[in-house]
Amino acid sequence: MKDEGDEQRPVTRRALLAGAAGALGAAALAGTPRLVRGQQGAKAAPAPLTPADPTKAPGAPTSELGARSAFVHPVRGPTGEIAGSSSTPLQDLTGTITPSDLHFEVHHAGVPRIDPAQHTLLVHGLVDRPTTFSLADLKRFPQVTRIHFIECAGNGVLAWRGNVLGRSDPGLTPQQVAGMTSNSEWTGVLLRSLLEEAGVQKHATWFLAEGGDASLMARSIPIEKAMDDAIVAWAQNGEPLRPEQGFPMRLLLPGWEGNTNVKWLRRLELGTRPWMTRWETATYTDPLIDGTARQFSFEMDAKSIITSPSHPDTIERGWRSISGLAWSGRGRIARVEISTDAGTTWQDATLEGQPLPKAHTRFTQMWNWQGAEAILMSRATDDTGYVQPTRAELIRVRGPGTAYHYNPIYGWRVMANGRVFFHGST
Amino acid sequence: MKDEGDEQRPVTRRALLAGAAGALGAAALAGTPRLVRGQQGAKAAPAPLTPADPTKAPGAPTSELGARSAFVHPVRGPTGEIAGSSSTPLQDLTGTITPSDLHFEVHHAGVPRIDPAQHTLLVHGLVDRPTTFSLADLKRFPQVTRIHFIECAGNGVLAWRGNVLGRSDPGLTPQQVAGMTSNSEWTGVLLRSLLEEAGVQKHATWFLAEGGDASLMARSIPIEKAMDDAIVAWAQNGEPLRPEQGFPMRLLLPGWEGNTNVKWLRRLELGTRPWMTRWETATYTDPLIDGTARQFSFEMDAKSIITSPSHPDTIERGWRSISGLAWSGRGRIARVEISTDAGTTWQDATLEGQPLPKAHTRFTQMWNWQGAEAILMSRATDDTGYVQPTRAELIRVRGPGTAYHYNPIYGWRVMANGRVFFHGST
Repeated sequence: MKDEGDEQRPVTRRALLAGAAGALGAAALAGTPRLVRGQQGAKAAPAPLTPADPTKAPGAPTSELGARSAFVHPVRGPTGEIAGSSSTPLQDLTGTITPSDLHFEVHHAGVPRIDPAQHTLLVHGLVDRPTTFSLADLKRFPQVTRIHFIECAGNGVLAWRGNVLGRSDPGLTPQQVAGMTSNSEWTGVLLRSLLEEAGVQKHATWFLAEGGDASLMARSIPIEKAMDDAIVAWAQNGEPLRPEQGFPMRLLLPGWEGNTNVKWLRRLELGTRPWMTRWETATYTDPLIDGTARQFSFEMDAKSIITSPSHPDTIERGWRSISGLAWSGRGRIARVEISTDAGTTWQDATLEGQPLPKAHTRFTQMWNWQGAEAILMSRATDDTGYVQPTRAELIRVRGPGTAYHYNPIYGWRVMANGRVFFHGST
Repeated sequence: MKDEGDEQRPVTRRALLAGAAGALGAAALAGTPRLVRGQQGAKAAPAPLTPADPTKAPGAPTSELGARSAFVHPVRGPTGEIAGSSSTPLQDLTGTITPSDLHFEVHHAGVPRIDPAQHTLLVHGLVDRPTTFSLADLKRFPQVTRIHFIECAGNGVLAWRGNVLGRSDPGLTPQQVAGMTSNSEWTGVLLRSLLEEAGVQKHATWFLAEGGDASLMARSIPIEKAMDDAIVAWAQNGEPLRPEQGFPMRLLLPGWEGNTNVKWLRRLELGTRPWMTRWETATYTDPLIDGTARQFSFEMDAKSIITSPSHPDTIERGWRSISGLAWSGRGRIARVEISTDAGTTWQDATLEGQPLPKAHTRFTQMWNWQGAEAILMSRATDDTGYVQPTRAELIRVRGPGTAYHYNPIYGWRVMANGRVFFHGST
């Protein structure tokens, strides 16, 4: 966003001088009431008239629900898929919280419409007291509130496949490269509280989690996760879960691949071995170099992506911040390094606030761009010591045909004219 | 929310037995496709048809923006005021983040519609280089992301005035008692970075912050706050500020009364004394017992409120959690105590996560209600040692006519029939 007629003004720190600034300020303060049309977003309805001087016109009254500015249009995409996914527009966002209406979605039979008064969660199998919990029942247990990311196991597939075919698409945005991860404050009950209530038996080693949509999505999970940090969540970012995130209740397995965080959760069955559902045999397995496939690859590896600058930005010379997100399914982000020379040299970025375990962490670093072509990269390290790999390192371990768990170091190419394109991974 | 035909089922921990539960579970799993009408919210449009068994019907496709479930209707209120306020429905929320469209609003001339490309921030007065910053300019500086509450100085006035007149309204909800506080993750630039850029002069001791709406709201702020933790914010909960919260940029003075967090910020003037604007003379001052008034009472004192159970809940016997919010403008919440006997005895509640400075903190405590009338209270202590006072203590210091900064201990009366009413403060 620029001042009109001011596009070429070089803005550097210590370079915003008094003359032009004072004149601009005076103009801003002396504005008379006239009406101009606002900027148009890609898919937005025409914006109503915007006063040229908002200090000369009364504004809108208090309202039940706020709406975004008519000048702001973040959207998920792609849309219209019953069995498919839409991604979070990471390039439009700052901080770490993903607005609930922009949380990425993956579903296999559409987003079900569920009456919370009719929905129940059955806990059965190897338990002393098979038990059905209503939403009201869940809310009577001790509750926890924690910030965690959820990432689809397939996040990054578009960039990975293109790279392997040697045609990394320069037009990919952060949303398309890595937008199937989102970060929320979740509230619910620890799963172990529910299992204690039902009297989980000592020889139970796995449980099945089944969703209440038409796909009856179901995954087998080791009991250790239930006894660690698994949550049955009913709220997200302060309010009841959104339908696409599992309203009225979902399983939350912090740090584990998205599909195991079963939405619209209706059944938990305790047993002694995995159920070998189609979701852990036909899909969500990773082919390896030797022709076998790994199953139950639950934890999401440490990953990062620069979200600003990124495609389709055009940047100006001078000081600016490089900013992005890093996360790990194994714990806290310990370090993010940034390279502006395609990985030849690296510098530590600043991590915002206190990094939380299994949560998005915002990193930033100042950069003084002087017009030379540059390739920007970020590399995350988590507190287990795991370092985000290059694409070559990933292929060495898992082969070029790997599916899911793509976390290579990503690059953005800044052209001499300031335009930014996706550079893929090397 | 209850299972149909199941309203009288007493639910206690260890009391959900196998028989009924198993039967319910089987019924849920054997449902056949039929359509029933969903619950209706107070002001909601009629809900479309909801499948009786969501596993037998395809759901909605992926979409650009998610929407709340048709069964969930949190709203701010009151609405329709150009010069007025609307409050956050605290009783509908969990966790600590306030959804951006439910953030309380106070404005004096409505919510202006501002084109961000036309908006600038002028920094002038006692600076070496008077400077105008566009939104794009601000984004080139080092950025910070922090979670803070904003609370209106007048939050609690309705409950306070009613109490003083001896007619505490039992029908008040948490939204009406204390809903003019909200908590967000804010992103922006430290104000001191901008003042350094403009070359703030050594003898500047105060600054004026002026908003860009038709009220030209302006407040005088000591320079120490600018050099401490003041932020010029452009983002809230991951996305650009909402219009009611100051789009495209606002002042954020963590922990200080809401009106000083000037929205639609357009001008900062550096000087050597307060400007004595109408906002710090005619309003936002507190009359004291001796007939004088205190001015510039910036910091919001430690406060808490139980949000569940609260009016208009009706609760059932047995175990449940008592949950609420606590915050302090001076630092972190160190302790929240809960009383279920009108303040005779107190027990420490559990604080969720790591309490952040000048941010809402969620507290919870389990309670086994056996049907006797009870009065629930919460009492917050911050890390400066300040303890949330009783109403009597507040009146002793500030008199019954005090305006603003109401933080007495609040009570909720639980009747023997389970209905919950506001009990006021004593």
